[in-house]
Amino acid sequence: MTDNSTAPDGLPTTRGPRRILVVGGVAGGMSFAARARRLDESADIVVLERGAHVSFANCGLPYHVGGEIPEADALLVQTPASLRASLALDVRTGHDVTAVDTRRRVVTATTADGDVELPYDALVLSPGARAVRPPVDGLDSPRVRTLRTVDDARALRSRVDGGARRAVVLGAGFIGVEAAEALALAGVHVTLVELGMHVLPPLEDEVAHAVTAELRRLGVAVRTGVAARAVFAGDDHDVVELGDGTSVPADVVVLSAGVRPDTAVFEAAGLECEGGAIVVDAHGRTSAPGVWAVGDAVTQADAVTGLRRPVALAGPANRAGRLVADDVVRPGAARPLPAPLGTAIVRVGDLTAATTGANRAALSRAGIAFSTLHLHPNQHAGYFPGASQVHLVLHVRADDGLLLGAQAVGRDGVDKRVDVLATALRAGMTVADLVDLDLAYAPPYGQAKDAVNLAGMVGSNVLDGTLRLWYAQDVDAVLDDALVLDVRTPQEVATGHLPGAMLVPHTELRARVEEVRAEAAGRPVRVLCASGVRSAIAHRVLAQSGVDSASLSGGMLTLRAVLGDRADDRLVVPERVAA
Amino acid sequence: MTDNSTAPDGLPTTRGPRRILVVGGVAGGMSFAARARRLDESADIVVLERGAHVSFANCGLPYHVGGEIPEADALLVQTPASLRASLALDVRTGHDVTAVDTRRRVVTATTADGDVELPYDALVLSPGARAVRPPVDGLDSPRVRTLRTVDDARALRSRVDGGARRAVVLGAGFIGVEAAEALALAGVHVTLVELGMHVLPPLEDEVAHAVTAELRRLGVAVRTGVAARAVFAGDDHDVVELGDGTSVPADVVVLSAGVRPDTAVFEAAGLECEGGAIVVDAHGRTSAPGVWAVGDAVTQADAVTGLRRPVALAGPANRAGRLVADDVVRPGAARPLPAPLGTAIVRVGDLTAATTGANRAALSRAGIAFSTLHLHPNQHAGYFPGASQVHLVLHVRADDGLLLGAQAVGRDGVDKRVDVLATALRAGMTVADLVDLDLAYAPPYGQAKDAVNLAGMVGSNVLDGTLRLWYAQDVDAVLDDALVLDVRTPQEVATGHLPGAMLVPHTELRARVEEVRAEAAGRPVRVLCASGVRSAIAHRVLAQSGVDSASLSGGMLTLRAVLGDRADDRLVVPERVAA
Repeated sequence: MTDNSTAPDGLPTTRGPRRILVVGGVAGGMSFAARARRLDESADIVVLERGAHVSFANCGLPYHVGGEIPEADALLVQTPASLRASLALDVRTGHDVTAVDTRRRVVTATTADGDVELPYDALVLSPGARAVRPPVDGLDSPRVRTLRTVDDARALRSRVDGGARRAVVLGAGFIGVEAAEALALAGVHVTLVELGMHVLPPLEDEVAHAVTAELRRLGVAVRTGVAARAVFAGDDHDVVELGDGTSVPADVVVLSAGVRPDTAVFEAAGLECEGGAIVVDAHGRTSAPGVWAVGDAVTQADAVTGLRRPVALAGPANRAGRLVADDVVRPGAARPLPAPLGTAIVRVGDLTAATTGANRAALSRAGIAFSTLHLHPNQHAGYFPGASQVHLVLHVRADDGLLLGAQAVGRDGVDKRVDVLATALRAGMTVADLVDLDLAYAPPYGQAKDAVNLAGMVGSNVLDGTLRLWYAQDVDAVLDDALVLDVRTPQEVATGHLPGAMLVPHTELRARVEEVRAEAAGRPVRVLCASGVRSAIAHRVLAQSGVDSASLSGGMLTLRAVLGDRADDRLVVPERVAA
Repeated sequence: MTDNSTAPDGLPTTRGPRRILVVGGVAGGMSFAARARRLDESADIVVLERGAHVSFANCGLPYHVGGEIPEADALLVQTPASLRASLALDVRTGHDVTAVDTRRRVVTATTADGDVELPYDALVLSPGARAVRPPVDGLDSPRVRTLRTVDDARALRSRVDGGARRAVVLGAGFIGVEAAEALALAGVHVTLVELGMHVLPPLEDEVAHAVTAELRRLGVAVRTGVAARAVFAGDDHDVVELGDGTSVPADVVVLSAGVRPDTAVFEAAGLECEGGAIVVDAHGRTSAPGVWAVGDAVTQADAVTGLRRPVALAGPANRAGRLVADDVVRPGAARPLPAPLGTAIVRVGDLTAATTGANRAALSRAGIAFSTLHLHPNQHAGYFPGASQVHLVLHVRADDGLLLGAQAVGRDGVDKRVDVLATALRAGMTVADLVDLDLAYAPPYGQAKDAVNLAGMVGSNVLDGTLRLWYAQDVDAVLDDALVLDVRTPQEVATGHLPGAMLVPHTELRARVEEVRAEAAGRPVRVLCASGVRSAIAHRVLAQSGVDSASLSGGMLTLRAVLGDRADDRLVVPERVAA
């Protein structure tokens, strides 16, 4: 299949397969095709796309719905004509691949003009994923729409322009939340329904809480822990009935209950699949010779847990397309595909939330022992205008502090910190290595000890025993068994404190250690402050006095996020007591 | 000196020296003191500060001058009283250390009440740096002021409030540029004088050019390649005479011609110094037992070049203070100080410019062979509102692509990319490793192939020979010896092209390769486009046709930045030819 003669440009092998077929003209498929052409001017490269558009900006669809990207055409980044002109690619839209014969190396596609058979030397599959259709009656109502294509976005936008006032979004994953935000910004009243216990299920409680609050601020009704049961199509509007018996009227319903690999044809062709996703090796090769696969349709071992899973993200798909081209055109010389970290980000109103690496659930599933850190540092110098907190959650391996995962939410600087942490994760850094990162500091951009440095400092303190943490998730057990010591100022305490807490401002603690010891009466002391900084100092004072103490990770800010809507019931407000 | 008994908190050693003296109560010194206290409740920790303030925000000073931080008190992050309350630190301002006897372990300080002698078990020096006073007559004019202290900032601010209309800033390093920006934003007409050939001398031409343009947009007169010769103090205003014989009237003169370690007392005490900076080992230990040093006053081996240099930056100083405390209080258990990368950032109007690692000059001095890459990707999806370019310059080791240095300038997203690259540099990544970084992508934040990923792709193409570059710096030789092939569109070409260039839009190139070969007549072909993307595709077409070709790194954007003010003279504008 490969001719090893030296090419005119003197590179080891630029003579790859003569005829390369690509199935799927978005993200991974188009990235593959462009790279393959740059490496090999002489190959025939044919791209088959089921839909009407190739290389469109699927991540931009919600922003057209909301009107932020006014023209849908802006999402059509390339056309078959532009790809032919620039890269001599033969792009054929309206080609729905229905069969692959991997022995004869022939693909069958259905077109408007009937079926066609196309031979290949190399076949690259980038079929993507399909929207999951949950078992909900009435999803065939014309008011129900997914948000996967430019036509979907146009249709939703025209409903909004046509006067839709009420929307129900089924599923609060990244697309669902973006759709809810977009519709809310367009003035539509949105109800966001999520079966999980919080929006954006891959995010931790601590992070998702802020997103929920921001969605509510935008006017979105957030309904979690409940599924849709049925959609009743009416003349004027639909009604979505939820599992708890309530009903929500809707002029438009967005179905965003997740995706699954769109691989039935390829599984039928005998490619090894797992849970519906195509299994590939480190170079994207499938079980069939001459067939590669990339993108949302494949399953790969996760970088942190080692467990295989499909990753439906545009970035990894685009980058994988390029690396697969290297393997197809220059076999033996390609870099392996990186294991996915699953880095993802979402804008919600004025907030940004992002994640990289493994979350608590994935680590637990994989049986990896870990510690969690919570910090709330400012994104830039506190004395510089516009300072705001980055709420950080880090998971590190219990024995050596290896970075396992990180999440953050805040108004500014979140993307930067998560990208730095994703880079550190990829590099195999430990949390202590974060102390040494030499990040760019000037007052508008950071702090002399950046949020990421501070995470390293807290993490290394935890690893070497200088700091001992307790967690908001354990607050009930702590209230039962320990003395809670609140070291905030009286002004802060007045906004709410845990019942039974001893109140000693941290500046008075050194003089009052014996008083604390007496109050504890043999119980452990569990310290807290607003964010975990002062309680860590207090912990050091107490620990060096021989008191069994620990500091609340992330302080009251994290406790409130974990308690969520229950916080007001669980905290004592002194005025309320007095009243 | 150290008592190895186990402390009540069960940690290996928390009994460090009994009496710890710290010289210098800002950045490194205060960071040291705070950490030392957290590690050891029982030590006496005394901080001596020459000035009236400790722990003030020296990086925030220019923003008070400009009025962005209206209250100077906001820059006083801590006071001796707050540090006593929170950390039981004994902070003594107005203590100017005049002698150290390292044998007797005694420090002498001059105070308002006369000299005092203070014994120590451990001494930590964080004296910082002093402003360089260049050999310019008249610098003693009362209108000349440095910008190093809160009092300096207050004084400059009061001049502005008092009606100063004209300022001269001597020295266009980071502080000088920040001062010029601040004064310009406050409505003062600023002349910025820099001896080097461009502002911000640590930055490359390609990056500094954009900063110069932005300063001019803010109304700053930028005078580079010239020194001040004298300041003539007048009744109403001063006059600054420059080396080229011109004179500039000034109501206020800011002296920001760099800093040098403030170490005379310590050099006199016999500490080993180099070029006036205190030499320290990997734990900040000086040549004298029981004496450590941190911050702007020390010299350390650079992470990239290995050459020793002082690094006058707040971030490394603050982090080093903490690591030195570990070594003082828990000897044997401390992490070593990281070698500095010199990451730095500056805001100038709507622009951000930043650098990490080595620049071209440092690499040349160190004799390291390197390749340079230029890219101009958007900071986020081009179809999303507000897209703007990040102008990136990367230096990578010639043989293996090890990252050596990176710089960037742009309106948005610069700090993030430089922080990611600083993290990759610290991790010892190669440019090809950047391809695999899994950075957070959604349209408001990045691209599916982030700017940093793209830099990795270009770099690995260069390393394996898929891409061959030529550089704007070599334009004269190229014009003499090669055929310049401009593959931009006619509309782009009309804005200016190199004289004698052959004009073939990249979409026509495949059909016109023989025409190009004939025009070249045996000369090499040197391709260019706007930013280097299309010329790289063209290079692949030509190279695979056996043509000796190369693509202009960074394209016309980089060429214009390198030509700077000469660009208009060097480029041919077709209309101008026709006229």
